[in-house]
Amino acid sequence: MSKVLESGVPAGTEQGQVGRAVKRLESQAKVTGRAEYIHNLEVPGMLHAKVVRSTIAHARIRGIDTQEAKELPGVYDVITGEDILKVIPDPYYGPAFHDQPILALDKVRHVGEPVAVVLATDVHVADRATDLVEIDYEELEPLFHEVESAKSETTFVHDVIRPAGTFADLKTLQPRAKTNVSMEYHLRNGDLDAAFAKADRVFEHTFRSQQVSHLPLEPIVTLAQLTDTGNLLIHTASQSPSFVRIEVARLLGWPENKVRVRTAYLGGGFGAKLYIKLEALVAALALITQRPVRLSLTMEEQFYTITRHAATVTIRTGVTNDGRIVARDCKTWWNGGAYADIGPRVTQKSGFTAAGPYDIEAVSLDSYAVYTNLPPAGALRGFGIPQLVWAYESQADIIARELGIDPLEFRRKNILRNGRPHATGTVMEDVGTVEVLEELARKMRWDEPFDHGSGPIRRGRGLAIGIKAAVSPTTSVAFVNLYSDGSCGVYCGTVDMGQGSDTAMAQIAADVLGLEAESVRVIHPDTEVTPYDMATLGSRSTFHMGNAVRLAAEDAKRQMVALCAEQTGFAPEALAVQDGGVAAPDGSFFTYGDILARRFGMQAGNVLGVGSYFPYYKKPDATTGMSDHITPYWMVGGSGVEVEVDTETGKVRIVRLVTVGDCGKAINPGIVKRQLSGASFMQMGFTLFEEMVFDEGQVVNASMADYKIPGFWDLPEQNEVSIVEVPHRNGPFGAKGIGETGSLGLSPAVANAVYDAVGVRIYETPLTPERVLRALREQQGRVWGDA
Amino acid sequence: MSKVLESGVPAGTEQGQVGRAVKRLESQAKVTGRAEYIHNLEVPGMLHAKVVRSTIAHARIRGIDTQEAKELPGVYDVITGEDILKVIPDPYYGPAFHDQPILALDKVRHVGEPVAVVLATDVHVADRATDLVEIDYEELEPLFHEVESAKSETTFVHDVIRPAGTFADLKTLQPRAKTNVSMEYHLRNGDLDAAFAKADRVFEHTFRSQQVSHLPLEPIVTLAQLTDTGNLLIHTASQSPSFVRIEVARLLGWPENKVRVRTAYLGGGFGAKLYIKLEALVAALALITQRPVRLSLTMEEQFYTITRHAATVTIRTGVTNDGRIVARDCKTWWNGGAYADIGPRVTQKSGFTAAGPYDIEAVSLDSYAVYTNLPPAGALRGFGIPQLVWAYESQADIIARELGIDPLEFRRKNILRNGRPHATGTVMEDVGTVEVLEELARKMRWDEPFDHGSGPIRRGRGLAIGIKAAVSPTTSVAFVNLYSDGSCGVYCGTVDMGQGSDTAMAQIAADVLGLEAESVRVIHPDTEVTPYDMATLGSRSTFHMGNAVRLAAEDAKRQMVALCAEQTGFAPEALAVQDGGVAAPDGSFFTYGDILARRFGMQAGNVLGVGSYFPYYKKPDATTGMSDHITPYWMVGGSGVEVEVDTETGKVRIVRLVTVGDCGKAINPGIVKRQLSGASFMQMGFTLFEEMVFDEGQVVNASMADYKIPGFWDLPEQNEVSIVEVPHRNGPFGAKGIGETGSLGLSPAVANAVYDAVGVRIYETPLTPERVLRALREQQGRVWGDA
Repeated sequence: MSKVLESGVPAGTEQGQVGRAVKRLESQAKVTGRAEYIHNLEVPGMLHAKVVRSTIAHARIRGIDTQEAKELPGVYDVITGEDILKVIPDPYYGPAFHDQPILALDKVRHVGEPVAVVLATDVHVADRATDLVEIDYEELEPLFHEVESAKSETTFVHDVIRPAGTFADLKTLQPRAKTNVSMEYHLRNGDLDAAFAKADRVFEHTFRSQQVSHLPLEPIVTLAQLTDTGNLLIHTASQSPSFVRIEVARLLGWPENKVRVRTAYLGGGFGAKLYIKLEALVAALALITQRPVRLSLTMEEQFYTITRHAATVTIRTGVTNDGRIVARDCKTWWNGGAYADIGPRVTQKSGFTAAGPYDIEAVSLDSYAVYTNLPPAGALRGFGIPQLVWAYESQADIIARELGIDPLEFRRKNILRNGRPHATGTVMEDVGTVEVLEELARKMRWDEPFDHGSGPIRRGRGLAIGIKAAVSPTTSVAFVNLYSDGSCGVYCGTVDMGQGSDTAMAQIAADVLGLEAESVRVIHPDTEVTPYDMATLGSRSTFHMGNAVRLAAEDAKRQMVALCAEQTGFAPEALAVQDGGVAAPDGSFFTYGDILARRFGMQAGNVLGVGSYFPYYKKPDATTGMSDHITPYWMVGGSGVEVEVDTETGKVRIVRLVTVGDCGKAINPGIVKRQLSGASFMQMGFTLFEEMVFDEGQVVNASMADYKIPGFWDLPEQNEVSIVEVPHRNGPFGAKGIGETGSLGLSPAVANAVYDAVGVRIYETPLTPERVLRALREQQGRVWGDA
Repeated sequence: MSKVLESGVPAGTEQGQVGRAVKRLESQAKVTGRAEYIHNLEVPGMLHAKVVRSTIAHARIRGIDTQEAKELPGVYDVITGEDILKVIPDPYYGPAFHDQPILALDKVRHVGEPVAVVLATDVHVADRATDLVEIDYEELEPLFHEVESAKSETTFVHDVIRPAGTFADLKTLQPRAKTNVSMEYHLRNGDLDAAFAKADRVFEHTFRSQQVSHLPLEPIVTLAQLTDTGNLLIHTASQSPSFVRIEVARLLGWPENKVRVRTAYLGGGFGAKLYIKLEALVAALALITQRPVRLSLTMEEQFYTITRHAATVTIRTGVTNDGRIVARDCKTWWNGGAYADIGPRVTQKSGFTAAGPYDIEAVSLDSYAVYTNLPPAGALRGFGIPQLVWAYESQADIIARELGIDPLEFRRKNILRNGRPHATGTVMEDVGTVEVLEELARKMRWDEPFDHGSGPIRRGRGLAIGIKAAVSPTTSVAFVNLYSDGSCGVYCGTVDMGQGSDTAMAQIAADVLGLEAESVRVIHPDTEVTPYDMATLGSRSTFHMGNAVRLAAEDAKRQMVALCAEQTGFAPEALAVQDGGVAAPDGSFFTYGDILARRFGMQAGNVLGVGSYFPYYKKPDATTGMSDHITPYWMVGGSGVEVEVDTETGKVRIVRLVTVGDCGKAINPGIVKRQLSGASFMQMGFTLFEEMVFDEGQVVNASMADYKIPGFWDLPEQNEVSIVEVPHRNGPFGAKGIGETGSLGLSPAVANAVYDAVGVRIYETPLTPERVLRALREQQGRVWGDA
C-alpha cells in the first residue's frame, strides 16, 4: 500500500491532475507584487487605529486618562473598554473560553494587553497619541512559569474561569475558581502500576520548550466597515474567516448574515491569525465611529498578541532490558499566558499523543492548561505536538543509549503498527509509522559507519519521529461551479497563506472534472461567497477541504454527465469525463459549454456541485480520556540530522537535514516537499535559537533585529525531503495533511545528534551556543580539542 | 381561480411571508443615501474615460487625428478603434448580432457613435481633450425612417448583416446583403383570404410610435480593473451581469472564470442597461492601460447610446357587423437605429402579439427589424408591445365606434379566453384576460353615465388592454444558503434596479423556510458569487428567478428537515418548518442553528439549496411562425383613463387613471401596485409629451431640460390600481411578472379617451398639444367653446 516518492515524479491519477507538481496558480501575481493582501487595502474615509498597551504584567486598572491624547491635533477619538461596552455589552471572546476582553476592563493580565485605542486619519498621529494616554495601575503579583502558576494558591490570573466557547464539549466544563488551571485532560489506559512493575528500568526526565513567536511577515491586520445596509464587512488577514464571522456576530448579538468576513492571500499565518485577533476590536471601532477602521500590528505588537506555548513535560517511562516500552506516565503543563485562546484544545489534543508513535501496554497522561501573566499562547504549526515529541523522542534516545540499543532499533521494537490500538484506544489505520521510520533510516544511511570528527568540531547524528492527530470534529464545505462555458470556479474557505492550498484544491477539482488545474479559478474566502470552513489550521485542509472539493466536483460531474446522457441517449455509465467535457462511446465529444448550451438554448446556466465533509469522530470518555475514533487520520513525520558541534563556542550547525513525512498521497509533490522543508526549517529556528526573552513579563527582544529567525545562511548544506505515501482510506485520492509533519521530530533529532557528537544531553530548547557550552563545561574532566 | 386584490390586504400563504406588503429591505439605505451604486465607486489609480463621438449620421472615416488631444497636459492617452484591435481582434458585439464595434472602425452609422476615447486622471481634462480630436469624414446618405430604410435599394447602413449572437436560433439566420432589414418574423395562422371574405367590414390604419429615451437617473456607468491574477473585474450598472461576463469573455477569447462582473443597486434601468453598453469598451481600456478605468455617461450621451424603437404599424382587420374580429393582417417596421442590440428579438417577440388578446380566425403578421442611421434601439419596458397595443387598441376603438358597439362590449365579444389558442397556436392557460377587462370596466364604472363636459374643456374616457409574452427560453439559477446560525442568504443574479426584487426574493425564500422576510439577506449580482441569470428584463424575474429561489429554498428546507429527522427519529413528513426552525410532533422545536450544531458538534457548517429554472418552450416553426408553447406565461394589463382636452390649446390632461394587471399572485402587493403605477406613469410620458426630436440624426432635445419626463404635476388627480390574481400553474406561489403590465394599454386608452372627448383620432404618439390642436383644427366646421 505504501510508496515512497523520491524523485518528485507523480504517481498520477486517471486524469493526471492529482500527483502533478503544478506550479502555484498565484506565482506570477506574487512575484510581480500584484497579489492581494489585506495589509495593502485602503478604503476611502478610513481611520487608523493604534493600541495603547499595558506596561504591567498583572494589575488592577484604577483609571485611564485620555484627555491629553484626545487633544492632540488630528486625533479623531480615543476609545477605552468602557466605550466598547456601549456597542458590545459582553465583550469577552475566545474560541475555547470567552475570557478575553476586547479592551481591558477591570484589570490587565499581561504586558502588551490592549487598554485603549487611538483613532486618527493619520496613522502617525494615532501612534504619537498612544503615548499621551495615562493609565493608573494597582500592581498585582505576576505569575510567569506554568508549573509555578499551576501550583499557586493565592494569586490568580482570572478570578473565575468560565468555559463557554465554540466547542460543545468545552461548554460543558464546570466553572473554576481559585486556580490558574483552566482545563485538564487525563488519559488512563491499562494498569499502569502493573506495567511499571514489569519494567526492568524506569526513566524519568523533565523537558521544557520555550515561548516563541509565529512571526508572519504580513502583520496581523484588520479593516472593518459598515455596509450600506448597516451590516459589517470585515477584511482581515485571518486563517479562520468563518470563525470570525460567527464570533463577531455572537458578540454583537447579530445573525451571521449581517457579518461578512473576507480574506485575501496571507503573508504567512502559522496559527497566529486564527480565531479572533483584531477583528472584534476593529468591528467595535467601526460601529462606534461609523467609519471604516484599520488596525495593523507592528512586529513588536505581534509578540504581545499571540505566541506558542512554553511547556514543561515530565515523562516517566518503564522499559524492559530488551528495549520494550511497557509503561508511560507523562504530565504536561502548558503555559497559556493570560487568555486561553485555543490553549485548552492544545492541552487536550496534544495531551493524548504523549505516548508517541509507540505501542505501550499502559499509559497515564495528564495535560494542564495554565494561565500565566504572559502574552496569550495559541496554536503554532504543530499544535503543541513538537513540545511533546521534544520530550518523548529525547527520552527515547536516552533510554536506547542506556540500554545499549541502537536508537533506530529501539524505535523499531516499539513502533505502533496499523491494526494496533493507539493509547487512546483508536486503532491505527493507514498510518505510515513504519514506512516513515524505515525511509528515515535509509536516507540517513543509518547502518553505515559515521565519522564523529575530531578536534574542536565534533559530529553527531540523531533522528526522531512523531505523530499528530487531526483536530476534530470539524467541517468543511465547498462548492464547485461550472459556468456557462464550462470553465470552473472552486469556492472554498481554505485560506492560502503560502501553503499552496489554492493550487491543491484546483488540482482536486480538475482531476475529477477532467480539466487542466491551471484553468480552475479558486475563489478566496469570503463568508458571503465561500461556504463554511472550520479554519485553515492543523494540516486539516487537504483532508477535510480536499474531500469537500472532491465531493463538490463529483456532484458537478454527476450533473453534467446526467445532462449529457439525457441529450445523447447514452447511459451515464457509458460516458467519460475528460478534456473539459464528456466523451460518448460513439466517439462524439461535448464540452461542458456545449452541454449547457444544448440544455438552455444559448450559452447560459451553470452547474453547481456541493460538497460537505464531516468525518466521524467519537468524543473521548470523560473519565478515561479514551475514544475509539479520536481523529480522522494521523500525521506521521520523522527528522534526521547530522550536526557539527563547535566545542569551543557551543554552536550547533546542522549540516545535513532529512525530513520524511507521510502525506497519504501527494496531491502536488512539489508543494508537499516544500511544506515538509518549510516546517522543518521553522522548527530549526525554535530548536537552535528562537526564544522570547522576558523581563517581568516584558519581551526584551520583540523585534526581528533581536529575535532571529532562520536566514539562508542558517540552512543546512544538505537538505533532503522524502514523501511517503500510505494512502488513507478516507483521504481525497488517499491524501492527508502534511503542513506540520516536518516540524514534529526536528528538535529531538538535533538534541540526539548533539548527544551523539559530544555526549551532552540538553533538556530545554533552544539549543543556543550558551546552553550547549554550559552543558559541555559541566561535563567533568572531559577535554575537547585536538585528540 | 381568480381573485381581485383591492385593499392591498394579502391573500397570504401558510407562512404569511408571500402576500405581505413587506417594506423594501433597502429602504433605509436608500433614504439615508448609503445605498451602494456603481456610479459612486472609486478605485485607487483610476483613469476617467471620455468618449469622442461622431457628429455625422452616416460617414466613412478617412482619418482620426489625436495628436493635439494627447498633448493636452493631464491627458493619459487617446484610444481609437485601431488600438482596441490590439487587445480585441474582432471587436464587434451585440446580443442578437455581433454588429457593433467597440469604437468605430471603418465608418460611423449614427450621430453620437463612439469614435475615440480620452483617458485622464482628471475627468474634466479628459472632457476638454475630446474637443481636440479631429475626425475626417466622407459623408454618406443617411436613412432615418424605418419604412424608407426598409425600402432602400441603394443605401445600406451595414454592407453585410451577419447574424451571430447569443441566441441559438438567431445564429442560424443567413447573412444578408443589400438590405437594411436585419431580421423578419412572419406568422401565418389560418386562411386569411377566406377569413377576410367572411368579414362585413375591413378596416386598415397605420399607427406610429416615436423614438424615446429610457432616462434612468443613475447614468450608464462602468468601471473595469485587472485583478492580481490578471483577470478582469468589471463593476457595472447593468441589468445583465451574466450576459456581460459571457460577451466580454467571448470578445477577449477568455474563459468565463477570468471575467467577473458585479453590480450594485441600479438607479433605474428600464432596458437601457442591458447587454453590452460600456463594458466591452471599458474592459478593453483597462487591458490597454493596465489601470482601472471608469466611464460614466452624461445625460446627453445616454440619448445616443440606447433608445426605444420608433415603429410603424399597418393593421388591417376584418370584422362582422355584429362585432366579431375574423381576420387580421398586421405589418410592423421597427426602427432599430444603427446597431441591432436586442431589436431582432423585439421584432420576433412583439411581432407575434399583434393579434392582441383577441380570438381571431385567421391572422397574418409581419414584423421587420430595420437598420437606420439613428442611435440604436433596444428594449424599453414592454419590449415593443406598447407600440403594437397602441395600434390594435386604437383600431379596436375605431372599429367599435364605426359598428356602433360599445368599445368594452366589442372587446368582450372578442376576448381570448383560457383554453383557446392564441394566434401562435399556444393555448391560453391561467391568463386573466377576462378578469382584467371586467375589473377595468368595474373600476371605470363603464356602465354609468359619463359627463363629457362643455365649453372649451371637454371630457372623455377610454380603455385598452394588451397582452405580452415572456422572453423565452431563458434560465435563472439561485442559491439559498443557511449559515451556521440558521440565518439566510439568497444568491440570485436578479438586479434590483428599483423594482423591489430583493424584497420579493427574500419573501419567497422566507415563506418556504419559515423565516421573516426582513431577516433574509439578498446578495447582489456578482458573477463570481451569484449563479447564472439570463437578465433582469421583460418582467421575467418574479416568475423565473422567483421559481429558482423557491426551488433553492425548498432544497435547503428538505436538507434541514432531513437532518432534523435523522437527529430526532421522526419521519421527515412529520416535521414542520416554521419560525426559523423545525417543529416536531412531540412539541419540541429546533432552530436551524440547533440542527447544524447537533450535526457538526459546534456552530458550524451550512446548508445550500440550489434551484435552477428553465421553463418549457417550443421554438416557432420557421415557415408559419407558430409554436404550441411560445411563452411560459402571458402578462395581461388594462388601462382606463378619463381625460380633459383643452380645445383651445390641444392639451390633454389625464384626470383619472385606472391600471389593472394580472400578476398571478402578488408576492408583495405594495410593490406590485407601485410597479403597475410606475409603468403607467412612464408610459404616460411616452403618450403625452416625451419624444426624441432629430435634426439630421442629431438629437436636438438631448437633455432633461428639453426632454421632459412626467413630474408630480403631470400625475392624474385620481390614480387607482387593481391587482388581479389569476394564479399561474407554473408561477412561484402562482406569481408571474408585472413590471411592464401597467405600460401596455395606456397610450391607446388615452387616444380613445381623446376621441371620446373631442372626436378626433390621433394616429401617432405623443399626443402633444400641437398634434391634438392640429387634429382639432382639421375637424371641418366643428366649433368648440360655450355650447
